[in-house]
Amino acid sequence: MFSLIKEDLKKIEQELFHEVSEANEYLNDPALHLLRAGGKRLRPAFALLSAKLGEYNYEKVKPLAMALELIHMATLVHDDVVDNSFLRRGLPTVKANWGNKISIHIGDRIFAKSLLLIDACKNSYVAKVLADVSVKMTTGEIQQLNSTNQISSSLKEYLVKIRRKTALLLSASCELGGVMANVSPEVIKALRIYGLYVGMAFQIIDDILDFTADEKVLGKPVGSDLRQGLITLPVLLALKNDKKNTLWNDLLNLSDDNSKIDRIIDEIKALGGISEAYSWAKNYIKKAVTAFNFVPNSPVKDTFIEIAEFIVARNY
Amino acid sequence: MFSLIKEDLKKIEQELFHEVSEANEYLNDPALHLLRAGGKRLRPAFALLSAKLGEYNYEKVKPLAMALELIHMATLVHDDVVDNSFLRRGLPTVKANWGNKISIHIGDRIFAKSLLLIDACKNSYVAKVLADVSVKMTTGEIQQLNSTNQISSSLKEYLVKIRRKTALLLSASCELGGVMANVSPEVIKALRIYGLYVGMAFQIIDDILDFTADEKVLGKPVGSDLRQGLITLPVLLALKNDKKNTLWNDLLNLSDDNSKIDRIIDEIKALGGISEAYSWAKNYIKKAVTAFNFVPNSPVKDTFIEIAEFIVARNY
Repeated sequence: MFSLIKEDLKKIEQELFHEVSEANEYLNDPALHLLRAGGKRLRPAFALLSAKLGEYNYEKVKPLAMALELIHMATLVHDDVVDNSFLRRGLPTVKANWGNKISIHIGDRIFAKSLLLIDACKNSYVAKVLADVSVKMTTGEIQQLNSTNQISSSLKEYLVKIRRKTALLLSASCELGGVMANVSPEVIKALRIYGLYVGMAFQIIDDILDFTADEKVLGKPVGSDLRQGLITLPVLLALKNDKKNTLWNDLLNLSDDNSKIDRIIDEIKALGGISEAYSWAKNYIKKAVTAFNFVPNSPVKDTFIEIAEFIVARNY
Repeated sequence: MFSLIKEDLKKIEQELFHEVSEANEYLNDPALHLLRAGGKRLRPAFALLSAKLGEYNYEKVKPLAMALELIHMATLVHDDVVDNSFLRRGLPTVKANWGNKISIHIGDRIFAKSLLLIDACKNSYVAKVLADVSVKMTTGEIQQLNSTNQISSSLKEYLVKIRRKTALLLSASCELGGVMANVSPEVIKALRIYGLYVGMAFQIIDDILDFTADEKVLGKPVGSDLRQGLITLPVLLALKNDKKNTLWNDLLNLSDDNSKIDRIIDEIKALGGISEAYSWAKNYIKKAVTAFNFVPNSPVKDTFIEIAEFIVARNY
């Protein structure tokens, strides 16, 4: 899927290891841990691909691609502290291995390193968008914290939250990759819209997979969101169909009891929560692809469409 | 002391409240809490004063002054989580009032907001220096975490740590205030050196006050550092004079027992740890003032010297 940028994405991966590595032995392992755990590197991939729509120059887009992944990583490290998560990408989290204190500082550090790379982009628009997205991402996170255990939270709130938490950075990845390669304003706009809708779909699928994925593939326990009191789209859509209030009552009495979580997941499925959430995701993907309609056909355009379709089809 | 910049510093204070305020009611109180608790606003003051040495333009230096205070605030909010601190500036910390989760996100958010302001400076050197300082500040913090409870940590390690943790941001405050006002390269260099040495002295005095200050004035329990297993300059200097290893043995058997902490503080004083640490601080202040020697006399220069002297004389 990433064949057009495969070599450069590999180089970005090496550069990321180089950037995150630490001379200090205490720092090196916790800093590199999340990077070593792997990941899709979707944000760097989007930045490189978007740049392929213009005057592609690897050296120019490299700091952006790296900064995007570092911003993402920093939020993950802090999220694992906030969510008290012990597993991510099938490995213990930084929090699990080194505790909250190191995790807070490592998250701060990785984020601070992203600033050096943003600076290296030498583009004030890039700096402005990423500063703005960083602020909005924290809005999404805090919103999530405050809505925990409020099963009355609305669909609208959910959508605003995932937009901030996930979609905006993916949107920026697509848009700014274009900016760094002098892509035309119309195509940059299309990239921004594409990234935003793909981002919405991406998070919805993440929230679906939290219920449906194989635990080994997911790399963390099934139903983690629910265990944390996090009400995601499949639950909200199931509740809409929950005429007898059985799911509602079960959620009100939610406990850590695994058998009960399993039953609730079954109820969510039976009430159509999963299938309807898939429809929502597919709808966003349709909008994402539509944004590209006017862009002339090319292997790069095909790749964007392929990625959009993969995002809904993926099982991890 | 700040009479030359009093009005503009007041405006910065108002702007900071405006910047940190949140429409969201959940966010507003934890976000504003630390700002409301007060503080010396030394970093904005340095930025404004330094700008007074050049083509002073309040609107130009404003975003820098604000960004510096936000960066500082963000680190304090995270530090209180890491250090498990419940009191700061005489009030409960954000951590104490709203818990670790909110504190992590609020710290991230305040830091992210600083990026918007750094961007508003429209000066890539400013962005580069502050990115660099932000990374180094986390080095200092992590270094501190790893040296906790290691009473063998050396004087050199201590100095490297406080340089990163405190002095570099104060140095940047002085230097970049000058940069934003087109101050000559020689004076900018003097400002950078002044800020660095004043910053070293500032942290040493902070570490002294942790042992000697009135608890009400300090706004947190006396001996907090020691209770956290943090070995600061007065302890290191006392240990140097601890020929009979009594302090050393007491530190090895340190507990939360308040009477014992009091005894250890007495030992540190008796071994000359406090008075020698004061000599070190005064020495740094001398170096800071010397950096200004070649700068022509002016009320601004006098203020810089006054602040340097105040930093050693202060009791809070």
